[in-house]
Amino acid sequence: MKNLTWKEENNSLKKTLVFKDFQSAFAWMTHAAFIMEKMNHHAKWTNTYNKVELVLNTHDAGNTITQKDWDLAAALDKI
Amino acid sequence: MKNLTWKEENNSLKKTLVFKDFQSAFAWMTHAAFIMEKMNHHAKWTNTYNKVELVLNTHDAGNTITQKDWDLAAALDKI
Amino acid sequence: MKNLTWKEENNSLKKTLVFKDFQSAFAWMTHAAFIMEKMNHHAKWTNTYNKVELVLNTHDAGNTITQKDWDLAAALDKI
Amino acid sequence: MKNLTWKEENNSLKKTLVFKDFQSAFAWMTHAAFIMEKMNHHAKWTNTYNKVELVLNTHDAGNTITQKDWDLAAALDKI
Repeated sequence: MKNLTWKEENNSLKKTLVFKDFQSAFAWMTHAAFIMEKMNHHAKWTNTYNKVELVLNTHDAGNTITQKDWDLAAALDKI
Repeated sequence: MKNLTWKEENNSLKKTLVFKDFQSAFAWMTHAAFIMEKMNHHAKWTNTYNKVELVLNTHDAGNTITQKDWDLAAALDKI
Repeated sequence: MKNLTWKEENNSLKKTLVFKDFQSAFAWMTHAAFIMEKMNHHAKWTNTYNKVELVLNTHDAGNTITQKDWDLAAALDKI
Repeated sequence: MKNLTWKEENNSLKKTLVFKDFQSAFAWMTHAAFIMEKMNHHAKWTNTYNKVELVLNTHDAGNTITQKDWDLAAALDKI
């Protein structure tokens, strides 16, 4: 399953989310953290105030994009 | 400011929120936690799976409802 | 496995934790939330500022204490 | 106040923390998030599984290190 809001770049799926403020960003991150933990697939993600940048790839596949990344991307989009 | 979605009972403001699941409930709680901490006014709150029960009153005013409780209630309703 | 720091009362395992402040309490709760979600077994828990009261029982077993509750209690004690 | 566990690099204070697992890392981040929000000074921080990389500088001072960064660094070290 592909989600076109994500960009493929350097063997990774990338997306940047912008929230109203830090509180909203971190509350979203908490929800996302549950999903990553449940799928046992964790993003590299960077937060700066109201912004969250996600970089997904699969370490066990030589840091390339696999179905696990598309699945995580889709799950995060449902939050 | 009054918010009619809250109920006055036993000298407390009460509200029960029901979420889709535990993850959604706890993400909301994380956002609410920032607000309580910022206002330096903390609810007594109980979570059971997808449910969050809030009980607000002011300890320093003999556990009665004060403007601080209405303010917190209003702030939580904006999440 | 029994953990003697927990008390059996009204068909539930109970424990009250007291933290330095609200921030410490909620950070612990976040860790605990991951564990509950992973074990798919969720406590009834109440937070008031620096205090967290846990009540564990198993809904599917008529709200009695089962091995699932002892397992969750043990996992929470390892945080 | 200086904290020598932080490194000055590219006009920023930097530190990398390694935790036991993702749950521990994110619980720490939740505590850190409260502190950043209370000080109204937010790090750029990146999490990958059990690792948290912090980059602190002051946007309003042209992205250089100020006392606000040392204060935040000290507060985070107390968690």
